[in-house]
Amino acid sequence: MVETNTNWRSELDDPEAFRAFAHEAVDLAADYLAALPERPVFQRMPPQARMNLLEAPLPETGLTAGTLLDRFQSEVMPYPMGNGHPRFFGWVNSPPTAIGIVAELLAATMSPSCAGGDHAAIYLERATVRWLMELMGFPTEGSMGILVSGGSMASLTGLATARQWASHRDGWNVRDDGACGGAQMTLYVSSETHTTVIKAAELLGIGNRQVRIIPTGADFRMDVAALETAVIADRNADYRPFAVVGSAGTVATGAIDPLDDIADLCADHNLWFHVDAAYGGPGVLDARVAHLYSGMDRADSLAIDPHKWLSVPVECGCVFVRDGTLLRQTFSLVPPYVQVEEGKGIGGLPWYAEYGFQQSRGFRAL
Amino acid sequence: MVETNTNWRSELDDPEAFRAFAHEAVDLAADYLAALPERPVFQRMPPQARMNLLEAPLPETGLTAGTLLDRFQSEVMPYPMGNGHPRFFGWVNSPPTAIGIVAELLAATMSPSCAGGDHAAIYLERATVRWLMELMGFPTEGSMGILVSGGSMASLTGLATARQWASHRDGWNVRDDGACGGAQMTLYVSSETHTTVIKAAELLGIGNRQVRIIPTGADFRMDVAALETAVIADRNADYRPFAVVGSAGTVATGAIDPLDDIADLCADHNLWFHVDAAYGGPGVLDARVAHLYSGMDRADSLAIDPHKWLSVPVECGCVFVRDGTLLRQTFSLVPPYVQVEEGKGIGGLPWYAEYGFQQSRGFRAL
Repeated sequence: MVETNTNWRSELDDPEAFRAFAHEAVDLAADYLAALPERPVFQRMPPQARMNLLEAPLPETGLTAGTLLDRFQSEVMPYPMGNGHPRFFGWVNSPPTAIGIVAELLAATMSPSCAGGDHAAIYLERATVRWLMELMGFPTEGSMGILVSGGSMASLTGLATARQWASHRDGWNVRDDGACGGAQMTLYVSSETHTTVIKAAELLGIGNRQVRIIPTGADFRMDVAALETAVIADRNADYRPFAVVGSAGTVATGAIDPLDDIADLCADHNLWFHVDAAYGGPGVLDARVAHLYSGMDRADSLAIDPHKWLSVPVECGCVFVRDGTLLRQTFSLVPPYVQVEEGKGIGGLPWYAEYGFQQSRGFRAL
Repeated sequence: MVETNTNWRSELDDPEAFRAFAHEAVDLAADYLAALPERPVFQRMPPQARMNLLEAPLPETGLTAGTLLDRFQSEVMPYPMGNGHPRFFGWVNSPPTAIGIVAELLAATMSPSCAGGDHAAIYLERATVRWLMELMGFPTEGSMGILVSGGSMASLTGLATARQWASHRDGWNVRDDGACGGAQMTLYVSSETHTTVIKAAELLGIGNRQVRIIPTGADFRMDVAALETAVIADRNADYRPFAVVGSAGTVATGAIDPLDDIADLCADHNLWFHVDAAYGGPGVLDARVAHLYSGMDRADSLAIDPHKWLSVPVECGCVFVRDGTLLRQTFSLVPPYVQVEEGKGIGGLPWYAEYGFQQSRGFRAL
């Protein structure tokens, strides 16, 4: 039965009503998870069920929480993506995990903005990112990292920092002057690099014609000799080669680029080394294959997705930058209404909003 | 007591163990919300409590869920940002709302990726974005919108689309050629525009020197005569003026720019009109001030933040684009492993990943 709520307050503003309702939701969630293995992995939605959602009219009045839960149960819950099923092998999407579900509940209960400030979520994010660095073998001293929406944003953040660094090296500032303020920059990826990196280059205004697609060998790993040839040719043509993206686990085949060789080449040619470890990074924890990741710790920036192999609910990506000061120089622009004095009020550590693109930020660290 | 779990499986993999644990977490959350009004709005964290989080070592073994909940209760929950308190008037951050908390629990229980596909979360997002358009008075026919991490990403998406449009109008493609592929573009904001818009321009490679800061009158609204003068001067200097950002509610004073006048000017001068309604947009629903928003419906793109006045948990922003095809042209780049055939398998509607920067995307629509 559809019940409307014409009061501007929610009936759940009473904490005891919230308690009863949330317990009901937990039972629904637990029943769903218990029944999941007996369901098909995936079924296309019946046309009518699609239309019920697609064409649902904007309600004229509020609905009660009970009505919303009923509709969720009958119209949404029966049609999942499939990644919760034990036999879902479709892609790299994490299944829902019990501890992650509860963490989302508790994070929303506090609902802080992790733009910055002196509250627990901020310090927990600092620790969480450091733990991820330690797990990946990335140096922590002087480095800075930040949780983001996923691998796309992590690579965008890394490449934006790379471009900032290159402009500084060449005596200008890309934030001030824009992409046309110096020699045109070129980026190097392999034919197996994820398309999100190319989208990042496009968004940055680099242009996909300035993204060089380096061939791979039969093992799907980047051909470093071909990379060097391309870098030299571009420099001779007055481009400004600025960064190479190595993959630590390509999505299509799991290939890990020769990271040490790429790091050597970057050092020789004054290039930024970004590692896309969004998918495959945690493989370094397996002693049988850890040697394949040699050189990952030499990255100038690295993208890792806790919402893939680490089974954190979407969305949770992370980027590390070896020179934390540079990350701040790339993104710091503090709006007047949050300029704070150190040691006073909500001040605290330098704000995350200075180290990334977002201002308001969720409590992903939990 | 700290209990470790050295098994690689979680003790919560059993749905009944999850059920009991989640009920415990709900009681913790309900107790917290009930006690919140009696607490101080905000307190700085004691130095030791900060250090406990900041310097927490990466555990050598897993911890049990019970230990994690205990630590959350003693080390995190006592130190909120303050926005849950009834007397928090600090910024525009939503308080935690009961229905939002439960929605986060249920979204994580399904944990789909809303990159795309034929599952309920996708159709619900289509409906949710359409509802937001209807609430804001934005035309729905031919438009497209997408939920994003917040106002920063919403404005970045709008301005990326604006730049794409401008390059098409001028006979080139900024995705291919990069920001230097045509005349240097200039963007127009007011002195009250949020700094996130300037960060977006910097990230796009436009450069803040190409962002013209138009003065406001004593009412903090953009001076449209000064805007026109600036546009003409730039065109005469061989720049390519491409977009104007109007604010529908500035964060500092709530001023609403003269949107109709700006829309007229954009039409006259062949400019894209982006409205930043992230903070103040929902004010249009108040009949006493709705007239101030006149012209908002003429925007080519619009940013609105459900995680501000609409009390959705962070993170939830949204962008509308009047020409949905153009939004897709700006972002579509489909990785080989998700290329699908229409009407088969997980196919479904054109994927959200083609309409925005992210690939994996959370279930914000719930």
